[in-house]
Amino acid sequence: MYDFAAEPGNNELTVNEGEIITITNPDVGGGWLEGRNSKGERGLVPTDYVEILPNDGKDPFSCGNSVADQAFLDSLSASTAQANSSAAISNNQQVSSGNDPWSAWSASKSGNWDSTDGWGAKPEGTTAQRNTSNNWDTAFGHPQAYQGPATGDDDEWDEDWSDPRAAAPYFKDSESAEAGAAQRGNSRAGSSSMKLPLNKFPGFAKPGMEQYLLAKPLAKPKEKIPIIVGDYGPMWVYPTSTFDCVVADPRKGSKMYGLKSYIEYQLTPTNTNRSVNHRYKHFDWLYERLLVKFGSAIPIPSLPDKQVTGRFEEEFIKMRMERLQAWMTRMCRHPVISESELFQQFLNFRDEKEWKSGKRKAEKDELVGVMIFSTMEPEAPDLDLLEIEQKCDAVSKFTRAMDDGVKELLTVGQEHWKRCTGPLPKEYQKIGKALQSLATVFSSSGYQGETDLNAAITEAGKTYEEIAGLVAEQPKKDLHFLMECNHEYKGFLGCFPDIIGAHKGAIEKVKESDKLVATSKITPQDKQNMVKRVGTMSYALQAEMNHFHSNRIYDYNSVIRLYLEQQVQFYETIAEKLRQALGRFPVM
Amino acid sequence: MYDFAAEPGNNELTVNEGEIITITNPDVGGGWLEGRNSKGERGLVPTDYVEILPNDGKDPFSCGNSVADQAFLDSLSASTAQANSSAAISNNQQVSSGNDPWSAWSASKSGNWDSTDGWGAKPEGTTAQRNTSNNWDTAFGHPQAYQGPATGDDDEWDEDWSDPRAAAPYFKDSESAEAGAAQRGNSRAGSSSMKLPLNKFPGFAKPGMEQYLLAKPLAKPKEKIPIIVGDYGPMWVYPTSTFDCVVADPRKGSKMYGLKSYIEYQLTPTNTNRSVNHRYKHFDWLYERLLVKFGSAIPIPSLPDKQVTGRFEEEFIKMRMERLQAWMTRMCRHPVISESELFQQFLNFRDEKEWKSGKRKAEKDELVGVMIFSTMEPEAPDLDLLEIEQKCDAVSKFTRAMDDGVKELLTVGQEHWKRCTGPLPKEYQKIGKALQSLATVFSSSGYQGETDLNAAITEAGKTYEEIAGLVAEQPKKDLHFLMECNHEYKGFLGCFPDIIGAHKGAIEKVKESDKLVATSKITPQDKQNMVKRVGTMSYALQAEMNHFHSNRIYDYNSVIRLYLEQQVQFYETIAEKLRQALGRFPVM
Repeated sequence: MYDFAAEPGNNELTVNEGEIITITNPDVGGGWLEGRNSKGERGLVPTDYVEILPNDGKDPFSCGNSVADQAFLDSLSASTAQANSSAAISNNQQVSSGNDPWSAWSASKSGNWDSTDGWGAKPEGTTAQRNTSNNWDTAFGHPQAYQGPATGDDDEWDEDWSDPRAAAPYFKDSESAEAGAAQRGNSRAGSSSMKLPLNKFPGFAKPGMEQYLLAKPLAKPKEKIPIIVGDYGPMWVYPTSTFDCVVADPRKGSKMYGLKSYIEYQLTPTNTNRSVNHRYKHFDWLYERLLVKFGSAIPIPSLPDKQVTGRFEEEFIKMRMERLQAWMTRMCRHPVISESELFQQFLNFRDEKEWKSGKRKAEKDELVGVMIFSTMEPEAPDLDLLEIEQKCDAVSKFTRAMDDGVKELLTVGQEHWKRCTGPLPKEYQKIGKALQSLATVFSSSGYQGETDLNAAITEAGKTYEEIAGLVAEQPKKDLHFLMECNHEYKGFLGCFPDIIGAHKGAIEKVKESDKLVATSKITPQDKQNMVKRVGTMSYALQAEMNHFHSNRIYDYNSVIRLYLEQQVQFYETIAEKLRQALGRFPVM
Repeated sequence: MYDFAAEPGNNELTVNEGEIITITNPDVGGGWLEGRNSKGERGLVPTDYVEILPNDGKDPFSCGNSVADQAFLDSLSASTAQANSSAAISNNQQVSSGNDPWSAWSASKSGNWDSTDGWGAKPEGTTAQRNTSNNWDTAFGHPQAYQGPATGDDDEWDEDWSDPRAAAPYFKDSESAEAGAAQRGNSRAGSSSMKLPLNKFPGFAKPGMEQYLLAKPLAKPKEKIPIIVGDYGPMWVYPTSTFDCVVADPRKGSKMYGLKSYIEYQLTPTNTNRSVNHRYKHFDWLYERLLVKFGSAIPIPSLPDKQVTGRFEEEFIKMRMERLQAWMTRMCRHPVISESELFQQFLNFRDEKEWKSGKRKAEKDELVGVMIFSTMEPEAPDLDLLEIEQKCDAVSKFTRAMDDGVKELLTVGQEHWKRCTGPLPKEYQKIGKALQSLATVFSSSGYQGETDLNAAITEAGKTYEEIAGLVAEQPKKDLHFLMECNHEYKGFLGCFPDIIGAHKGAIEKVKESDKLVATSKITPQDKQNMVKRVGTMSYALQAEMNHFHSNRIYDYNSVIRLYLEQQVQFYETIAEKLRQALGRFPVM
């Protein structure tokens, strides 16, 4: 994807843009994978610099979802379509995004976040400019938006996605799925060149926002999301009992008489303790539905990437499961998402029939997109537009700044990971070997009375070899978690440009409404309603931010504590080992 | 001198062979200097890769020594002459060997040791082959041999060396000095192209060895060096009281009405506590005399290099003094050298007159080169030739192996030094900065109740900045001494090819003597004497090796202990700092 110049002596591989390399070990860690170029040279390459190529010539994208979703997704990922389509430049499955703890996201999904940055490099004013334009159809690129499995496909996923008419469980009788799959597949295969009429679907783009702001009266939905005002301002209502969901026991399933295989995970909600099984594509379906339904109000981080299988399959499955676990836990922690029918149904269906009907119901849900705000009932006085704008700007400013901070830490951490797992332990090993060599030479002196010294030098040498091992293993014990946490937050923060975009769009709409009142296109009461409804959006944003902040404080406190604890232990272990080595030296 | 490709991101500077760079900071440490190339780019370059250029067009070499010495030095440094001559390729004083703790030697004097290796890359057999040749004139390259101040000259040295006829203290009335200076200067300036007749001078090359082995009777010299047999075999006789010599108080002196300045050191032997002053060139004179007198029997490590002065003058003086101190201590520790009239006179002259007469006497000494063995009296039975050969081979094998071991450690240590003072602390600094940035962003959230966390994260960040400082400073506290010790031993070991060469030459001479007996050129008694005399050489070698080994054991035990102690303290300090940082995090 980019040129990468290897640092000599660091076991790196120079790659040029457009070059195709073969992954020899995607599990190097620290955002690095080991690859081999066409000359047969091996070395480390940052996973961010490479892009996964699909494994065959088939259109890898086809899936059972409604056309409405596809339109929504298209609208969200308009800005990412180009990046997405470039993943199909080669038919050889030669490059994977690797199995490192966080860069997998960067390399594919979040790659867009880096290159087609949601915030962009534009100055502050740009956002306002973007929102003062009258084109409400402008889709704000959703960097976390689902982009389909065009990257990292393997037999399992390929099978799942490429043949929707095959007897896929839970999907085989879904008519809309088949129709949608074909259309969506075509749309994707043509790099989103085939446009679907967006305004046909409620809740997305302009008609959605207008419907939400101008509908009179706003239909009272059965679904209600209350917003209360607590000590920290507007808050979601937290359920009295919370639950987590244990993702475990990945099992290979097969169908078509064993010709096709897939991995199924066991999900056990801690409140019911009753397990359900789901394949990755079901997680993917859930993510998509959550994004469609709550994406305008709540950041929904994308799922961990799918990975190339092969000889690293077990590692991949383990890593993916760890990340699916983190994702599920994150969803369970959210009071709105965890209590939603959609999420509950995903975890608590009793049989295939119930799952299918729940799935159909979810796909027909019209309270999606900005219409989700119509379900929200803030127990609070109406806000004026200035205050709403200020709150929105504050969120925009904070999330943008935090995004920079998180990225800085990720960059530094990735570099540090590399040093700690590459050159540094190699050096300690060399020191250890050099000391042992010296002791061996000394032992050949024929001089008496140096046996103790030589044994001590040998031990010191071995100690440095041990330290090499400790240094190389340490990042998995501390930096890994700091990186995972930051990567998770990078995912959250990547959702905010869309959320803020929706809010700013609504604010602009209200600002323009004076003209509509003047020309009698709407009544002053309509305008009042609009302000009230944008106020509801603002309360939702504030509630979500309060949720975000309290989680952020907890998460960062935990993860930095853990990091420091592990670091203290690490340095103490080294000191102790060296003290032992020192103790073996004779006192002269 | 060599191409050097910079490692990107490591603040290095790519230089090509023949390129001239300007030193901007020779005191980076770890074998690195900071330079600027003609394009104005700055960066680190290994000092081993650059060569010092003299600072003016004058022949920088001229000095007051006898012609005999010059011949001896020529014979010793024949193999290094080529390397030496290449130092004069430019008249611009732009590149210095830097002020790092050990590479200064490598870059200039010991540079020959690296490139024109005394041991060479030849297989074991080569030495034997070399010695079975009848050409006794073959001079074994002495890698530590004095090569004159062609490198690293500054005003001080330039003045000292370039104008021997000027009113230099202690030298102005020395006729032989003037004559020798001119000859030697010419010889050097012409890249040793002008050959002096070596056989004119006793004790060097063939006639020296023949004189020693065949003289009948061997004149009983007044000077006697006894060799006794102790628990560990042949030993030098150690004096009942030992002394050290404190090198201190470097002072700038000047002459010619302040136009020329020099540094004078105060030397105080601990046994007399009476100080004498010496300039570097006097040390250099001593080194040369010791080499001439004892170099065939005892390894005399070369002096620390002279350095470029300028804005780093103070640093240079300090570093040079530290190394002169180490060198003097090493000489004081040697029972033969410390008790020699030459060495005693250097430390104990009472006035200029006494110094001058002592100097003249030393320069006229004929018991130099292999003739030193004629002063040795082993109290032990005669050895047979086989045993002599085995002992010699064992020393050869050991010193060669140790030389490899020492070099390995030096290479590893230099690399480690670079990492510890360059990329690693930079990374810790970045981690520290990233944490502090994050805390700053968090503080702008407007959310209550995170003040403690943010203060703690800020502190953690500062702690990592402190750790960066600790990491960068640490090598000076531990690795420095390990490196200095190894460099000192590299210096010793570099003397062994000459010593072993002399021994093997003598052994070969004895082997060939059967022919001489057969052709009645010598008597069987002559041959007996030869064997006895080679046996004396062997006892001397064994005594020296026992001295070497006991020092080696003491030195390495001390220096590795020190290294480990400092390392333990280092890691404990880091652990403690991190523990304190951890303690500031709120418990949630």
